[in-house]
Amino acid sequence: MSSHLNEECGVFGVFGHSRASEVTYFGLHSLQHRGQEGAGIVVSNDDKMVGYRGLGLLAEVFKDKQNLDMYGDKAIGHVRYATSGGSSLRNIQPFLHRFYDMEVGVCHNGNLINSKTLRKELEQEGAVFYSTSDTEVLIHLIRRSKQATFEAQLKESLCRIKGGFTYLLLTKDALYGAVDENGLRPLVVGKLKNGAYVLASETCAIDILGGEFVRDIYAGEIVIITKDGLRVESYIEKNRHAIAAMEYVYFSRPDSNIAGINVHAARKRTGRRLAHEWPTPQADIVIGVPNSSLSAASGYAEESGLPYEMGLVKSQYIARTFIQPTQELREQGVRLKLSAVKSIVGGKSVVMVDDSIVRGTTSQRIVRLLKEAGAKEVHVRIAAPPLLFPSYYGIDISTSSELIAANQTLEEMRVFIGADSLGFLSEEGLIESIGLKVDDLYGGLCMDCFNGDYCAGLYDYEEEFYRKLTPIQQAFLEKRK
Amino acid sequence: MSSHLNEECGVFGVFGHSRASEVTYFGLHSLQHRGQEGAGIVVSNDDKMVGYRGLGLLAEVFKDKQNLDMYGDKAIGHVRYATSGGSSLRNIQPFLHRFYDMEVGVCHNGNLINSKTLRKELEQEGAVFYSTSDTEVLIHLIRRSKQATFEAQLKESLCRIKGGFTYLLLTKDALYGAVDENGLRPLVVGKLKNGAYVLASETCAIDILGGEFVRDIYAGEIVIITKDGLRVESYIEKNRHAIAAMEYVYFSRPDSNIAGINVHAARKRTGRRLAHEWPTPQADIVIGVPNSSLSAASGYAEESGLPYEMGLVKSQYIARTFIQPTQELREQGVRLKLSAVKSIVGGKSVVMVDDSIVRGTTSQRIVRLLKEAGAKEVHVRIAAPPLLFPSYYGIDISTSSELIAANQTLEEMRVFIGADSLGFLSEEGLIESIGLKVDDLYGGLCMDCFNGDYCAGLYDYEEEFYRKLTPIQQAFLEKRK
Amino acid sequence: MSSHLNEECGVFGVFGHSRASEVTYFGLHSLQHRGQEGAGIVVSNDDKMVGYRGLGLLAEVFKDKQNLDMYGDKAIGHVRYATSGGSSLRNIQPFLHRFYDMEVGVCHNGNLINSKTLRKELEQEGAVFYSTSDTEVLIHLIRRSKQATFEAQLKESLCRIKGGFTYLLLTKDALYGAVDENGLRPLVVGKLKNGAYVLASETCAIDILGGEFVRDIYAGEIVIITKDGLRVESYIEKNRHAIAAMEYVYFSRPDSNIAGINVHAARKRTGRRLAHEWPTPQADIVIGVPNSSLSAASGYAEESGLPYEMGLVKSQYIARTFIQPTQELREQGVRLKLSAVKSIVGGKSVVMVDDSIVRGTTSQRIVRLLKEAGAKEVHVRIAAPPLLFPSYYGIDISTSSELIAANQTLEEMRVFIGADSLGFLSEEGLIESIGLKVDDLYGGLCMDCFNGDYCAGLYDYEEEFYRKLTPIQQAFLEKRK
Amino acid sequence: MSSHLNEECGVFGVFGHSRASEVTYFGLHSLQHRGQEGAGIVVSNDDKMVGYRGLGLLAEVFKDKQNLDMYGDKAIGHVRYATSGGSSLRNIQPFLHRFYDMEVGVCHNGNLINSKTLRKELEQEGAVFYSTSDTEVLIHLIRRSKQATFEAQLKESLCRIKGGFTYLLLTKDALYGAVDENGLRPLVVGKLKNGAYVLASETCAIDILGGEFVRDIYAGEIVIITKDGLRVESYIEKNRHAIAAMEYVYFSRPDSNIAGINVHAARKRTGRRLAHEWPTPQADIVIGVPNSSLSAASGYAEESGLPYEMGLVKSQYIARTFIQPTQELREQGVRLKLSAVKSIVGGKSVVMVDDSIVRGTTSQRIVRLLKEAGAKEVHVRIAAPPLLFPSYYGIDISTSSELIAANQTLEEMRVFIGADSLGFLSEEGLIESIGLKVDDLYGGLCMDCFNGDYCAGLYDYEEEFYRKLTPIQQAFLEKRK
Repeated sequence: MSSHLNEECGVFGVFGHSRASEVTYFGLHSLQHRGQEGAGIVVSNDDKMVGYRGLGLLAEVFKDKQNLDMYGDKAIGHVRYATSGGSSLRNIQPFLHRFYDMEVGVCHNGNLINSKTLRKELEQEGAVFYSTSDTEVLIHLIRRSKQATFEAQLKESLCRIKGGFTYLLLTKDALYGAVDENGLRPLVVGKLKNGAYVLASETCAIDILGGEFVRDIYAGEIVIITKDGLRVESYIEKNRHAIAAMEYVYFSRPDSNIAGINVHAARKRTGRRLAHEWPTPQADIVIGVPNSSLSAASGYAEESGLPYEMGLVKSQYIARTFIQPTQELREQGVRLKLSAVKSIVGGKSVVMVDDSIVRGTTSQRIVRLLKEAGAKEVHVRIAAPPLLFPSYYGIDISTSSELIAANQTLEEMRVFIGADSLGFLSEEGLIESIGLKVDDLYGGLCMDCFNGDYCAGLYDYEEEFYRKLTPIQQAFLEKRK
Repeated sequence: MSSHLNEECGVFGVFGHSRASEVTYFGLHSLQHRGQEGAGIVVSNDDKMVGYRGLGLLAEVFKDKQNLDMYGDKAIGHVRYATSGGSSLRNIQPFLHRFYDMEVGVCHNGNLINSKTLRKELEQEGAVFYSTSDTEVLIHLIRRSKQATFEAQLKESLCRIKGGFTYLLLTKDALYGAVDENGLRPLVVGKLKNGAYVLASETCAIDILGGEFVRDIYAGEIVIITKDGLRVESYIEKNRHAIAAMEYVYFSRPDSNIAGINVHAARKRTGRRLAHEWPTPQADIVIGVPNSSLSAASGYAEESGLPYEMGLVKSQYIARTFIQPTQELREQGVRLKLSAVKSIVGGKSVVMVDDSIVRGTTSQRIVRLLKEAGAKEVHVRIAAPPLLFPSYYGIDISTSSELIAANQTLEEMRVFIGADSLGFLSEEGLIESIGLKVDDLYGGLCMDCFNGDYCAGLYDYEEEFYRKLTPIQQAFLEKRK
Repeated sequence: MSSHLNEECGVFGVFGHSRASEVTYFGLHSLQHRGQEGAGIVVSNDDKMVGYRGLGLLAEVFKDKQNLDMYGDKAIGHVRYATSGGSSLRNIQPFLHRFYDMEVGVCHNGNLINSKTLRKELEQEGAVFYSTSDTEVLIHLIRRSKQATFEAQLKESLCRIKGGFTYLLLTKDALYGAVDENGLRPLVVGKLKNGAYVLASETCAIDILGGEFVRDIYAGEIVIITKDGLRVESYIEKNRHAIAAMEYVYFSRPDSNIAGINVHAARKRTGRRLAHEWPTPQADIVIGVPNSSLSAASGYAEESGLPYEMGLVKSQYIARTFIQPTQELREQGVRLKLSAVKSIVGGKSVVMVDDSIVRGTTSQRIVRLLKEAGAKEVHVRIAAPPLLFPSYYGIDISTSSELIAANQTLEEMRVFIGADSLGFLSEEGLIESIGLKVDDLYGGLCMDCFNGDYCAGLYDYEEEFYRKLTPIQQAFLEKRK
Repeated sequence: MSSHLNEECGVFGVFGHSRASEVTYFGLHSLQHRGQEGAGIVVSNDDKMVGYRGLGLLAEVFKDKQNLDMYGDKAIGHVRYATSGGSSLRNIQPFLHRFYDMEVGVCHNGNLINSKTLRKELEQEGAVFYSTSDTEVLIHLIRRSKQATFEAQLKESLCRIKGGFTYLLLTKDALYGAVDENGLRPLVVGKLKNGAYVLASETCAIDILGGEFVRDIYAGEIVIITKDGLRVESYIEKNRHAIAAMEYVYFSRPDSNIAGINVHAARKRTGRRLAHEWPTPQADIVIGVPNSSLSAASGYAEESGLPYEMGLVKSQYIARTFIQPTQELREQGVRLKLSAVKSIVGGKSVVMVDDSIVRGTTSQRIVRLLKEAGAKEVHVRIAAPPLLFPSYYGIDISTSSELIAANQTLEEMRVFIGADSLGFLSEEGLIESIGLKVDDLYGGLCMDCFNGDYCAGLYDYEEEFYRKLTPIQQAFLEKRK
């Protein structure tokens, strides 16, 4: 329905705070943008573990304060957007497993690419899965491992799963965090004022808690926090340093830092670079599509010397609008999400900066809004390369046939969205704007959606990927060889 | 609790659309920022009138689509913030009154200043009030009027009420809108694609519906829409043209125009002017307090030539956060609403632009956030004059003792909020930045909160106003004479 | 939809208990059978009055314990079934009116028959009604009265309203109860262990609170309870002692006493009498239609010497069943409310005792159930005379056209419901079985539904009553003259 | 909290009806008395299986009609009272398991006594359990079975579980029902008018659907329904025919037949027998404790020739009362659930018939109620033997220490509950009153709670049983040897 990209999930954990459930609630609150379909928290004290989870926004799940009244000094929590598995309650995490010999909480961000194969193997051996979530695969592997300790079982199991992921696990005496062998999904460690350690998908969760950033967890690493302190080890040899570029482009909060790079600053640099790659000297003003493109737009404005204006206004109440205009009303011009400001854009040549074009229908709608509000010209500038390929590592762009860039040329796209001109940032432009100081392919980024280079392989999805390749995708891959 | 200014209400009406209830829903959706405590819609067809209303956001009240299934071609609607009257359901508007000889729906935006006197008079004559809302006074006056027609009764009654208000009334065959004799509260007329007329507090409601702006309703005017078309008359001689300046400064949506002036553009001009009145050449960056101060901040940045940065991030989910950090957690640094971005403000001298200082506690909190995030200096610039006086015309600043500017000098305020410097826009600066082309006092604005000049008088509040005057207020008034 | 008789409301008041709101909650709980559409409580202490009310069962309205947290030592409460006025929240009682000079809570049980006339008169004088409920008329009369004291205003106003009613009113220092000039609707006074007085529709509310019965409030009386104690006066001369017979036949709880007569015992006597008037010597067993007819059935069984069996079972969960069988499923025999027990009624000649036949469809359905379960014969015995006339004093049988007895002969009814024989208790049988020791017409009962003798007159309903008379009703009235 | 006995669950299944989900809803509705904590339905068509379940009453879970919109011609459903496993959503049944090679729905009534042992064994082999419910054990056994077909896997697995149970399983093409090797829990087959087969815990579910009873499923049997019709086989040799006597005494609905015996009739016979075993010639009236003891009370009345009266009234709204009287109010006499009717019992010598005494506190409370209402004498007669032993086969009496009969002599009990005399039905009396025509121990009943003879053994509970034996229990067992 939505033609936006959706991030999979956010994870958070804390060890060593007497109000662990509340700390986790507040940490998750800052990660809510990573998932709005469900939320949950599992708390552990030395004696036992308890949990609560539900469908909807974090604040709805825990609307009743009692649901947070879980006593313990360590906890993990999760906000979910459904990448794989449906959106029923049984897929909401963290899972809390109680065995005769131990209890363990598990949650996970990302997508496994060999889970179908692993599930089938496990079911053939008698395993009964409860959820349709990838998360559950890990605990089955752990419980069947012949290793002597939980930590050894966990490491062995992590080596068997492929894809992009971070996993958090909680037991009565330890908090574990693990990142896939390419470091596709982010995980950071922070330290609170009282000495407690926290793990989180983004640094903004550390900031909201008034904590200090300690370090990033990199590809193939596992972090183990016990009352003896924090330990980071490699459970597998790093494959390639390949942070998902989309974390910078779209997903993460602008105030977060990923691998030491601030997201707002990186976006602003993409806007500046875009002003060089696709200048628009004849334009009057620069506007951004709220909210994720405002940083890039202000960068474009500053670099080009054009005024940065609020030409589009997004309703802050839209998330709560259950009633949508009918087709009849839409044709009469009724719109809820975005308004173009007539007195700003009327009679102007406008540079409209956005972060991505997925199906093209959203861009088409916004360009039309601006034109109807009197814009003389609309020059669309995208602060990232075209989305040419689907993602299998935890981003919700599943089908090539839906991606406009996989099916149309640049000029066809321009005509489709109704812009007077259209420009995308180059691959190099994106890589250099982000500016990771990493000595690896693509400057340490995973550019899979842009160039089809799947750093972690395709596994269960390989057949589907090649079967569905469009002529444009094929031509692109051909050329890259 | 909150130290923010709160607008009283938003009103919307439509005449001549077969889906009047839905059109009203969408119109109100764009006015949601004017009131989040309750919402309601009354629909009329030639046969009868029905209504639905409830507590909470519009989308919650009408979560069940059935509640919108009200058949009729004319409607009025209301989103409420409680200025006077409590927040129980019985005060949620529009009211729908059924008499033996007619039905009438009524809703209202603003605050009457002689309602206490009028209620007592009416009760002494046997009137029974249901709500504690000012709105109800008007219908009692109408029903007791000896005039021959409803329109004449309405006009007579409007002449008896004082304060700042817009009223919408709906009967089986007509839609009425009225504005107080000073034009304190805004009301505009628009026309939809199918020819239907709409009335709304702000032009953004016309835009969201794809309609055309027709005209503003000015001080002392009443608009009457029937199947014979639209008529505007004066029901009382205009006292003074005095639009509430706070509509530009804080309340209205940036994409709305009031009296022909775009709000975003006006705010950007206040920012530019502020850069002249209170320059900060030594600063590194300019940031705005989201969301209402971003326009002014970008104006300041452009005029001063400093970079405009996203130094503060506001959680878009905050409205839904029922659980707040405890004092203990707050002391540990846990914050939900705003985050300061370390990598943006760290080590920088920051100009922080905001639109107002009420109690000073919010500003104090934000300055502290910025300093904790590493800001070297914080220069606070307010894009309006100090809030020296309470408002009685529909803005929720009821007590002089709460207003920091009524109790502290500029330097005391600076110390209190912890800023390295503090500057307010001048009265002239505000008036000229807004730039109404009106030949009346203060350029056609009501500056009551800034200068104590109450254009509509004080009535029931006079005794209280003088009794509570602070020394700073007294000195200010003395000097103005 | 339902073809059952519905009582209008239950009222309860307490004076002199530190937990007045809770005492009222529990009192109302025992009166829940008198109304399930809404409930409310208003509490008063010497300082102020507060209230809470909502749609649904009492326990749903006060599901959130906080809603009961109203401090005060006197209270009134109400459970509502909508006789007049729709079922929207605005009609839920008690109403709490706040005037500049006093506060007053009001609730009411019954139906006024001249309220339409009074409302029109009041509206012509400028009155604005909020609800569509009869209750509100009284407060308008009071506020327009020229009497000097509230008590005098109340008495004067009570004299102007006609019909069957009990009113409870609460002020900061007094609790008032009033009964109509015929005593149609019941009201009793009790005393709790701590000395507090209570007023209630039925004695079961006194019993549930462990209190002692003090006295009945009779026709034309008003009871006034203040800190100086209890006073009962006549506000109007009694018209006629005429308790609604339907209170005994159907409405009241079997454990309540009305005018000193226990309801279960009275019903059992109707059953015994019925066994004499309509004996069934050839039958094998006697069964009652649960729940209201079980007392009469056991009386019939004991008197006739036949075994009393549980031939019909009523689901105790039915009130909560939102989903009903479709027509298709109903034809396949799917039934939710009542089951006939095959092994009890199979092959038997059954006497089925019920308390009334309204439209006849329910009886038809039950007879069919019994036959399908194998009953050889079904002899229907009704423990009251035929319902020939509509009620206007607070019972929900509004239309003559719906009453089967007003449109069919006894034999036609028997055929319609499919019974092998059908008998109704005689008027004398009912009057003598109830056995009030009152020297007035019909032994002190109002038999309006049975004989068309409307003790309180018809007023606003007179024209409608005569216009809609059926031939059977006309013949009956003719004969009675 | 409650001192009542609670049945474990009700199960229902249908095969061959186009509205299978609705038929299941209505079938479950008649079984609601067997469990009020949760409900669910799983539907299957030839293509796929879907399900919905939730906490609370059936009508609450399916309040939103959409939840029933599950297309398919076969279904199983469940109403749950938590015997084992907590009451969280994850234990609500039916479970719907999706495997790579099949889908299967499972629900279950009763309690396994070797599940702890089985779970541990399975977990040691790597099994991951989701719920804490016994139900889940079966599916793990099935999936690990090496048998070739699902039916063979199921039969093998059923042989490994011990206790009292009925299981229903649903696949894309078959509906299965199984009963434990002693037939402790009931299961019946019925046929609807359209030819569809239904399985249900009680015959009342067949009756409510207008269907015909086909047969009981006996000890050790499995019924398999496919499109080829119905097959019943023995999956294990019957251990002993031992229907839980408590099904007749307390749990089942009076209109159900178990093994051909109507429950109401059986109860009435226990009342008649009780009148012989414990006559009360000096008494004036007989009353029953509503609702489960009314049948026995009417039997006692008829046999003794005493009048059967309604001396106790139970509020039909009690299930919905969330607010309970405080200790202070309880001491003042405030009571919600039961009222004693003064005018019935006042001055009388009363025989009070009940079905069981668990802790004794309920009986004590009722006797006190009757005495406070003026009863001269109260003679308590229990229509079953004393509850001497805990149940492990699915009835919620877990602890010997709570059972008054396991800790006090008859005279001590009489004193404790405050009765003037106390009598229990004999074991022989109960067995003969139920009157199963079965040639097995105790006439084919399981009398475990009354005599400690656990027909299915104790397994995991053996150690606990002997450890907690009270002196009275020990003496009883000693004597029986």
